[in-house]
Amino acid sequence: MSDQALPGEFELIRRYFMKGAEASTSDASAHRPTRGVALGQGDDCALLLPEVGTRLAVSVDTSLADVHFPRNAPPEAIGHRALAVNLSDLAAMGARPCWFVLALTLPDDVSEPWLAAFSEGLHDLARAHDIALVGGDVTRGRELSITITVHGELPAEGAILRHGARCGDLLAVTGALGGAHGGLRAWFDGARAPDDQLLNAYLRPQPRIEAGLALRDLATAGLDISDGLLADLGHLCTRSGVGADLDEASIPLAPGLCEALGAEEALGAALGGGDDYELLIALDPRDEATARKRMKALGLELYVIGRVVSKEGIRGVDTKRQGWQHFYAADSGGVL
Amino acid sequence: MSDQALPGEFELIRRYFMKGAEASTSDASAHRPTRGVALGQGDDCALLLPEVGTRLAVSVDTSLADVHFPRNAPPEAIGHRALAVNLSDLAAMGARPCWFVLALTLPDDVSEPWLAAFSEGLHDLARAHDIALVGGDVTRGRELSITITVHGELPAEGAILRHGARCGDLLAVTGALGGAHGGLRAWFDGARAPDDQLLNAYLRPQPRIEAGLALRDLATAGLDISDGLLADLGHLCTRSGVGADLDEASIPLAPGLCEALGAEEALGAALGGGDDYELLIALDPRDEATARKRMKALGLELYVIGRVVSKEGIRGVDTKRQGWQHFYAADSGGVL
Repeated sequence: MSDQALPGEFELIRRYFMKGAEASTSDASAHRPTRGVALGQGDDCALLLPEVGTRLAVSVDTSLADVHFPRNAPPEAIGHRALAVNLSDLAAMGARPCWFVLALTLPDDVSEPWLAAFSEGLHDLARAHDIALVGGDVTRGRELSITITVHGELPAEGAILRHGARCGDLLAVTGALGGAHGGLRAWFDGARAPDDQLLNAYLRPQPRIEAGLALRDLATAGLDISDGLLADLGHLCTRSGVGADLDEASIPLAPGLCEALGAEEALGAALGGGDDYELLIALDPRDEATARKRMKALGLELYVIGRVVSKEGIRGVDTKRQGWQHFYAADSGGVL
Repeated sequence: MSDQALPGEFELIRRYFMKGAEASTSDASAHRPTRGVALGQGDDCALLLPEVGTRLAVSVDTSLADVHFPRNAPPEAIGHRALAVNLSDLAAMGARPCWFVLALTLPDDVSEPWLAAFSEGLHDLARAHDIALVGGDVTRGRELSITITVHGELPAEGAILRHGARCGDLLAVTGALGGAHGGLRAWFDGARAPDDQLLNAYLRPQPRIEAGLALRDLATAGLDISDGLLADLGHLCTRSGVGADLDEASIPLAPGLCEALGAEEALGAALGGGDDYELLIALDPRDEATARKRMKALGLELYVIGRVVSKEGIRGVDTKRQGWQHFYAADSGGVL
């Protein structure tokens, strides 16, 4: 618990995590208004004002150094990624991001420039999705650990759930797969170019918030692909009590993935590699055109990759790939 | 990331953290109804229904082994304590507990009996305060770390805030102080008796939820005493733009504290020791009788320990005691 590497925690918090919030005030009216925030950081709790008639979506995820990301990854990417994986859970339900709280455990070797870059990556993504940091806790420890709890809002009906897929529904994903796996492989091979597409797919995943909102009333079921397509499709099928026929040829591979890994391993990465954070949804074939049009309007594409069937299990691909080895984290965690 | 000491994470979660929630369901209607929970554990997010017209109070706290508690403390107490320190933040605002999410990082040497006892301590306190576990994340790591985000509800007006204390207000605490400090000292001296009063004050603090609710409309300002009376009174004074005259003789010392530490050190523990989790409030002298009556109805006492004055600073006690040395954590963390 040395304070040598960093200024005092309170100063550190003020400097890097109170952008857009008052550090201290003796007058409640001095708080800058943020959507739905009656009281932001600095008291025992934040006070929030959920929109009347909405449901609150809440999710928590921990990102641990050398489990969920390489400890020596760019700090800005670590900040981005820690929030992105949480926003992806909101996207998976079709929720609109509102607020988040941050619990940060910092080892002694974290420097101030590291922290500045980390906080920039975090705040940039927060701004992009209009989500406000409303509270947190900073602790010194041996391991770098980032736990974020996100809050989003949903109309009274209309969340995308894991159950609900029906026989005959199409299965579709919101983007190319396998890029994150390829990027992590590239990282370990020494790739550091900031414009490396695969590397960016791993380090700076884009949570599909807009896609989730656009598809919310069309999807019969859905989730985000964090554990890999086959694993997450397995969750959807189990929860919906259905099976899936996939069309291997229509599974979209991340640009550059075949060149980097070869065709065979690229397909394995797309099927079994995690961390892509695209959405996987089921939808009625009659809604396909509408879904495509809405995605196009967002500059995104919808890739139909198969169909829901009544017979349990996943067919059409080599499902042994479900055991595809992550570098990290394949079995390191679970979601309650 | 060995799975030798414990069963698979998903199984572990199901076994110890899904009490009162469905582990898996293909039918939303199968969910057992819990107050304000539209969808509990098992999907990408929990879906919650805040009461119309209320404000949502949110707070997050990390409890790290050998920083916030001794790693070899009884696991049931670790579970209790991790939730208690979070509930205390709700108590500090006068909020009613609703829901919490849990992010747990478990080292390999955690055994199943340990986890069973930890979960029992956590669930027992959750039940006592009618707060539902609605989601979480379990990760393997080197350090035992518990991050909890609590959610409570408050009426549209009426939270206890750190600012608002006025010159002439009384300063009062909801219970005896110094016990936690004495208990931690006793722990290091080898005390293990389960009925040791001081030890219990440290290991099993009781969040003053009921007191917070009872005093919410009377307190002009308040917070919970986590960093020690002088430190937390300092926060209240700074945020309220006031000072404080304390009456040293009226500061309530935890039972057995003088016997254990001697009078001088006992007072130091009460002034500077942290982790007591009593509430410190300011209130108009005209409300004192009402406040006392309400506390009495809860089986608690209100101790008036001083008065708010306009002149900044804290007088009436030896304020150098603010630097009183915690065994742990005195400067290990901060709240955003």
